[in-house]
Amino acid sequence: MENKIELGADIPLRIEKIQQELSGTKIDAALLSYNADVYYASGRYFRGYVYVPAKGEALYFVIRPNDFTPADNLIYIRKPEQIADILTERGVTPPKTLGLEMDMLSYSEVMRLQKAFPHSETTNCSQALRNARMVKTDEEIRMMREDGEHQSAAYNRITRCYKADMTDVEFQIEIERILRLEGALGYSRMSGNLMEINLGSVIAGDNADNPTPYDFAMGGRGTDPALPVGADGETMRRGSTIMVDMNGAFNGYQTDMTRVWRLGDIPELAYKAHDCSRRILRECERIGVPGLKCSEFYRRAEEIVAEDGLHEYFMGHKQKVGFIGHGVGIELNEQPALTARCAVELKAGMTLAIEPKFVIPGVGAVGVENTYLVTENGLETLTHFPEEIQEL
Amino acid sequence: MENKIELGADIPLRIEKIQQELSGTKIDAALLSYNADVYYASGRYFRGYVYVPAKGEALYFVIRPNDFTPADNLIYIRKPEQIADILTERGVTPPKTLGLEMDMLSYSEVMRLQKAFPHSETTNCSQALRNARMVKTDEEIRMMREDGEHQSAAYNRITRCYKADMTDVEFQIEIERILRLEGALGYSRMSGNLMEINLGSVIAGDNADNPTPYDFAMGGRGTDPALPVGADGETMRRGSTIMVDMNGAFNGYQTDMTRVWRLGDIPELAYKAHDCSRRILRECERIGVPGLKCSEFYRRAEEIVAEDGLHEYFMGHKQKVGFIGHGVGIELNEQPALTARCAVELKAGMTLAIEPKFVIPGVGAVGVENTYLVTENGLETLTHFPEEIQEL
Repeated sequence: MENKIELGADIPLRIEKIQQELSGTKIDAALLSYNADVYYASGRYFRGYVYVPAKGEALYFVIRPNDFTPADNLIYIRKPEQIADILTERGVTPPKTLGLEMDMLSYSEVMRLQKAFPHSETTNCSQALRNARMVKTDEEIRMMREDGEHQSAAYNRITRCYKADMTDVEFQIEIERILRLEGALGYSRMSGNLMEINLGSVIAGDNADNPTPYDFAMGGRGTDPALPVGADGETMRRGSTIMVDMNGAFNGYQTDMTRVWRLGDIPELAYKAHDCSRRILRECERIGVPGLKCSEFYRRAEEIVAEDGLHEYFMGHKQKVGFIGHGVGIELNEQPALTARCAVELKAGMTLAIEPKFVIPGVGAVGVENTYLVTENGLETLTHFPEEIQEL
Repeated sequence: MENKIELGADIPLRIEKIQQELSGTKIDAALLSYNADVYYASGRYFRGYVYVPAKGEALYFVIRPNDFTPADNLIYIRKPEQIADILTERGVTPPKTLGLEMDMLSYSEVMRLQKAFPHSETTNCSQALRNARMVKTDEEIRMMREDGEHQSAAYNRITRCYKADMTDVEFQIEIERILRLEGALGYSRMSGNLMEINLGSVIAGDNADNPTPYDFAMGGRGTDPALPVGADGETMRRGSTIMVDMNGAFNGYQTDMTRVWRLGDIPELAYKAHDCSRRILRECERIGVPGLKCSEFYRRAEEIVAEDGLHEYFMGHKQKVGFIGHGVGIELNEQPALTARCAVELKAGMTLAIEPKFVIPGVGAVGVENTYLVTENGLETLTHFPEEIQEL
């Protein structure tokens, strides 16, 4: 891999998509430095800033690494305070209104950038970036298909890595190894400080009913009060389900997939809830065409859950969450959030993880999560793997 | 583990340390919600806010999880906008100046909190928290000793997990497994967006000379432009060094340790630089007593490197970094940063990772990193493991 900006052929298209979003606002230019946005706008992560004018060429201001291939649109700087002068030298009109990622950057960093552009007003461009990133380009979709294939290939080896009397953590460690050997980068970009986890979540038995402080669909106690989420180190018991929701990041993108295993026999209620999850997914796949309001996913799911009388267990038991899915791409938790009030309308090219899940007390978590691509014909699955509860 | 606040007996002491830092400022109360600070001030992570008045009792405003043991200082809220009214109801005088973690929280979050406290001025309390956290309590030191023991126990199994013709990534995956089986949480808290990595860094041969955009001491190309750091997937070659700088987080704290392995024979220059690193550490251990200005570590290191004529390779070759170590604790990159200009004076109870490293072109990286506790008698090592270059 040569060390240059604009690795992907679709970078000009991505810049155009950002510019389209800016054109609906009063923002004359956006200055991007949030990791996920820098990667989106350049095809690689570097330390520095991407300057995206509402019209015209994007400029890449790089602090590090120091070995990029020279290019006209690549300018080395030591600090952001140099950018305004360099723009002037290049004959670029200073932006009247400069967009900054105010939802992402620290308050102190935003104050610093405001001072570095004394002749510009600044405003929040975070939503413009979220909107641009929400609808994927063909190249992004290709990368997410690749993620789905790798994640499925790794999941296909999960059953074999179980050994009797394992703890949930020991089981998870073997799954982590399988994912890494399949090419997982071992890191998942997530937005905001409400998301901290290791390589994912393996939740066995009653641990599913331990609430978490984080914004994940399911909880789990974790093994330490510093990171109270996921596997808790208990030996996995017969009569339990084991829900596996592990990392699917094999390139700068990721897919999100959950499947369920069981140890021994589990009660009929668990199968019923698992089937209900699959029926919800089939319904979402059918109705998920461009133009649909995202709240419809949640509304239809609630209806199906009510028909089955499973509300008590849906999306948590002792503690519930208010969404059944989310956008996914460079970050695990992108927009839209599939809540009861989500007004976003589907567009072709969006990628969504949908995860109707249930917590059955005394048994564990059940349900399926797939990552989908929105197409004119409904949702296309990117995470192909049998959805049935599998035996360990 | 019962789900309650104040697990650790030293939490009152930590609150006192925050209050001491506040007393040197005009801040009447700090409102903490940054993950590492919430953990510091409560002994566990939860979603919510810790209100620390300059004098008086700390209050814990919890959004999630919903199953905490009731306590007088624990108040459930749905959103931060409720806090000011609750304080008034409890007879707490509203703070004239409220400290917020402005270096950590997003600009938007700070704006929201400012609106939620309309009768208070707000100011940045990030440095007060960094100062409080910089000097560890006995309980924090105990936890870091535990980290050092676990990390050393895992490192002791590294040689055995090597197999011929492995790539650096395959080697790293086995080390990750060993660390996780030893109890590593699989997650490392790091401050700021200049730090992204998986479970650590394994750098073999010439990959050590590939610059990284991140703030790590060593670089590496990584396997994907989305995460350009660390192992690059090449087969490890004879005549190379392999530098292992992997995760040491076995509880809410962590130690940071680097050791070097070799494949076959390596040139004399590599041994010379490795010995130089060890001599720098011995000198740091000797001079590191309370009262020392941290810049002295860097100055003495540079002197020793100059004596040996190794400047060209010190702290990077194609791209260099300007520090030889850093504070470590809840986060991997705490203060102080051991740079040429660091004016912080050592205090007993500080914990530092010192990592004088060299990149030898055509061979790889060499050098040792230990985590140390500052004592009246100099630095005490928390990461006990042989420092010699070991053969694979």
